[in-house]
Amino acid sequence: MIPNWLLQRAYLTPNRIALSFGDEQWTFQQLKEEAISIASKLRSIDLQEGDRIALLGASSPEMVFMIHGCLVAGLEIVMLNNRLTTEEIAWQLTDSEAKVWIIADEFQNLTAQNENAFMTFSMIQTLPIKESHFTEYWEPSRTITIMYTSGTTGFPKGVRQTADNHTSSALSSVLNLGLDENDCWLCTMPLFHISGFSILVRSVLYGMEVRLYEKFDAQSIAEEICRGTVTRISVVATGLQRILSEMEKVDSVADPMFRTVLAGGGPIPNDYLERSTLRQLPVLQTYGMTETSSQTATLSAEDALRKSGSAGKPLFFNRIKIADGKRAGEIGEVLVAGPHVTPGYIGHASSKSSLVDGWLQTGDLGYIDDEGYLYIVDRRSDLIISGGENIYPAEIENILASHPRVLEAGVCGQEDKEWGSVPVAFVVVDTDLSAEELDEFCRHRLASYKVPKRFYFVKQLPRNASNKLLRRTLKTWLDSDEK
Amino acid sequence: MIPNWLLQRAYLTPNRIALSFGDEQWTFQQLKEEAISIASKLRSIDLQEGDRIALLGASSPEMVFMIHGCLVAGLEIVMLNNRLTTEEIAWQLTDSEAKVWIIADEFQNLTAQNENAFMTFSMIQTLPIKESHFTEYWEPSRTITIMYTSGTTGFPKGVRQTADNHTSSALSSVLNLGLDENDCWLCTMPLFHISGFSILVRSVLYGMEVRLYEKFDAQSIAEEICRGTVTRISVVATGLQRILSEMEKVDSVADPMFRTVLAGGGPIPNDYLERSTLRQLPVLQTYGMTETSSQTATLSAEDALRKSGSAGKPLFFNRIKIADGKRAGEIGEVLVAGPHVTPGYIGHASSKSSLVDGWLQTGDLGYIDDEGYLYIVDRRSDLIISGGENIYPAEIENILASHPRVLEAGVCGQEDKEWGSVPVAFVVVDTDLSAEELDEFCRHRLASYKVPKRFYFVKQLPRNASNKLLRRTLKTWLDSDEK
Repeated sequence: MIPNWLLQRAYLTPNRIALSFGDEQWTFQQLKEEAISIASKLRSIDLQEGDRIALLGASSPEMVFMIHGCLVAGLEIVMLNNRLTTEEIAWQLTDSEAKVWIIADEFQNLTAQNENAFMTFSMIQTLPIKESHFTEYWEPSRTITIMYTSGTTGFPKGVRQTADNHTSSALSSVLNLGLDENDCWLCTMPLFHISGFSILVRSVLYGMEVRLYEKFDAQSIAEEICRGTVTRISVVATGLQRILSEMEKVDSVADPMFRTVLAGGGPIPNDYLERSTLRQLPVLQTYGMTETSSQTATLSAEDALRKSGSAGKPLFFNRIKIADGKRAGEIGEVLVAGPHVTPGYIGHASSKSSLVDGWLQTGDLGYIDDEGYLYIVDRRSDLIISGGENIYPAEIENILASHPRVLEAGVCGQEDKEWGSVPVAFVVVDTDLSAEELDEFCRHRLASYKVPKRFYFVKQLPRNASNKLLRRTLKTWLDSDEK
Repeated sequence: MIPNWLLQRAYLTPNRIALSFGDEQWTFQQLKEEAISIASKLRSIDLQEGDRIALLGASSPEMVFMIHGCLVAGLEIVMLNNRLTTEEIAWQLTDSEAKVWIIADEFQNLTAQNENAFMTFSMIQTLPIKESHFTEYWEPSRTITIMYTSGTTGFPKGVRQTADNHTSSALSSVLNLGLDENDCWLCTMPLFHISGFSILVRSVLYGMEVRLYEKFDAQSIAEEICRGTVTRISVVATGLQRILSEMEKVDSVADPMFRTVLAGGGPIPNDYLERSTLRQLPVLQTYGMTETSSQTATLSAEDALRKSGSAGKPLFFNRIKIADGKRAGEIGEVLVAGPHVTPGYIGHASSKSSLVDGWLQTGDLGYIDDEGYLYIVDRRSDLIISGGENIYPAEIENILASHPRVLEAGVCGQEDKEWGSVPVAFVVVDTDLSAEELDEFCRHRLASYKVPKRFYFVKQLPRNASNKLLRRTLKTWLDSDEK
């Protein structure tokens, strides 16, 4: 049994700071009171333990209260990406069968062309309080969150993350990173991503402050790191780069109390690591995904340069191996096991098993060196990682192919200085069609970060004998004149 | 599944220091090599996974190697108290049905009048190595250790401590105490007690150095605390007192790197706490027992004086309540639940359930105050805690009653400046019998710390209507003239 996180934490350390945002802060006791108030109001509209709701909002204290309110109430939360289009949201709402869609007031426009039942944060605040008893202990296998991630087919799958998944992840992490009573984790990662949500989980398990940012403010973040008002931060490569630039501008270094930059969402360029060393910024590269409730492996700061490019070793309770019994140095599919791995999906993908013989098949290619360090050499299913967001080519290709004048389309990632990678599209059309028209078409149907940054019109797409699209050949076209 | 602790730890951080003893030290890789060597030799005498052995030794590096060797080999270890008499040991060996009794060479004399099969450490070192594969992952429910603890009946019961019990205990503790990569835990507690053994478990889970002492050397310990060469220590009250005296002698204070004195095995006098504050020694009082694989509740250092006498709040994954739905401040039996609680006993007590409705009935009386802090007001079953060792009056009474000229006997604890408490006996005899004769009789049958320090000859013992011995009345006799 796992304690209802916030209830137990508020009992143990009621007066510690749980959350800060700008000049405001809340203790665990205050956070609990906010959460219980929301949970009691949700009971008044008959949301009972185990019911599923969908939640959409920005990184605000109200969003954190709402998340904890739903958790205390024992609801399963579908965490919706607030950058999705109304069409994409509608799809996930339908697939998840969420009983109610809870949405932050500032996103209410997203409900306009949507037929799903919704309630804004302020509508919930006006509900009557229904005095309720909230379960103090959870079954480890109960679903806490559901996060959608696209797969090779282009249809997003709702990944279940259980109480045990989240808890194990936080515990494995603490054995690797350590824990100090003065720790404070700066959160600029989206809360609807596992990278951000897992910070909230660590907060309640560790009794640790979360310093929440609504937006990525590089200058302000750099200042906090140098003052030591925060001790940990999670970033993607582009975020690290922007923080470094700010520190370099004023020639500052990290405060000695600052302990960890947890850098995920794709590889970190060597140049950033060297610049981090100069700024006394300990960068730990990590490898994780939605299906593993955050980190599976993490490279320690002392190994950052010696093992540059590596995602490190698994956290204590996790296991990693390369498929087909590959030996040290041989490349194969990366397989993952451990208490942090999802038991499976919901909705249309619910019958799909997430595991084969107990192992999660990541689709990523990698190898383990002779010292046991993991290297990822190619991302799963031609995945494009753009500023930490996962983009699956198939999803964009499906949209493009639905245009009446597009015969076929292929998407791949193109290197980008700011975002690491951006999607670009190769299209075969039957009549004249402009890039502007295609862009416009996509913007209505895809979150803006998924809209191809460039459209290349070609006569045909590279396919293999069984007619499978060769996306890697598309990549080589980017470097040649064939496009 | 839980990783085979040492194998996983040596994979993750092979070069960190695992153990030091005097001027010697071993990395996790070296510790693993010692353990694998022993495990491979044990396989040669057909000790297979799940087999049960008994282990007796002092706090030496060889003992740590042997413990880890048995753990790597997947054996269940009966941890024998090396202060027991040959009779007590024989009883536990028989009850546990241990396949082999492994004993440190310096204790070989204990095997003289014992018919159980044994092997000394040096005999094991001469065994041939049998190349073996060791299971890398354990079922959480598998038994790791068995520790005997006496109960109300006076017959010691072998308590099972599973992989999950030990692991949960270490994880709960880290959420409370924090963890730093420079942490080093000084171990002077016996390794056959959960207080000492749990330090070894934390070491492999945390990747933390254990600084092992064979004996309690107060001066040397005080010096290490003041130099900051260790950061944590577990003590009982009498140990804390001796450390404080050493620090006071030279008017020293703890190094700022030193973080925790974990003080268990009974209440800590207020005077010690005040003296600790002066020495900048953060003392955390804790409440635990063999059945809970170390700490159930721990009082934080900042609450040490404000909540003096309290055992604090439960660790994150644990639960405590007072029986019969007692409200804040009302005294009742302390009940404990959580992943750290034993699933039960072995041997003669194996059919006894350790839990009632999922709760361990500690037998201790206590209350929880209105802020949720636990106070123990009376120890279970008239338990006598003497220098951290648990002594059950019934066990001594059984021995005394077996003397042909003793009609009946009652034992209780008497306050003692050095040990906290010592056992004293009230006996009714049919003819003249001297205290010396009784002392001699006990010494052959009981570990010396259990031998009553004083014998009072009385006409009859205090009993209630149903003839139950009233040990608490004995205690009042100690303060009066009735004895």
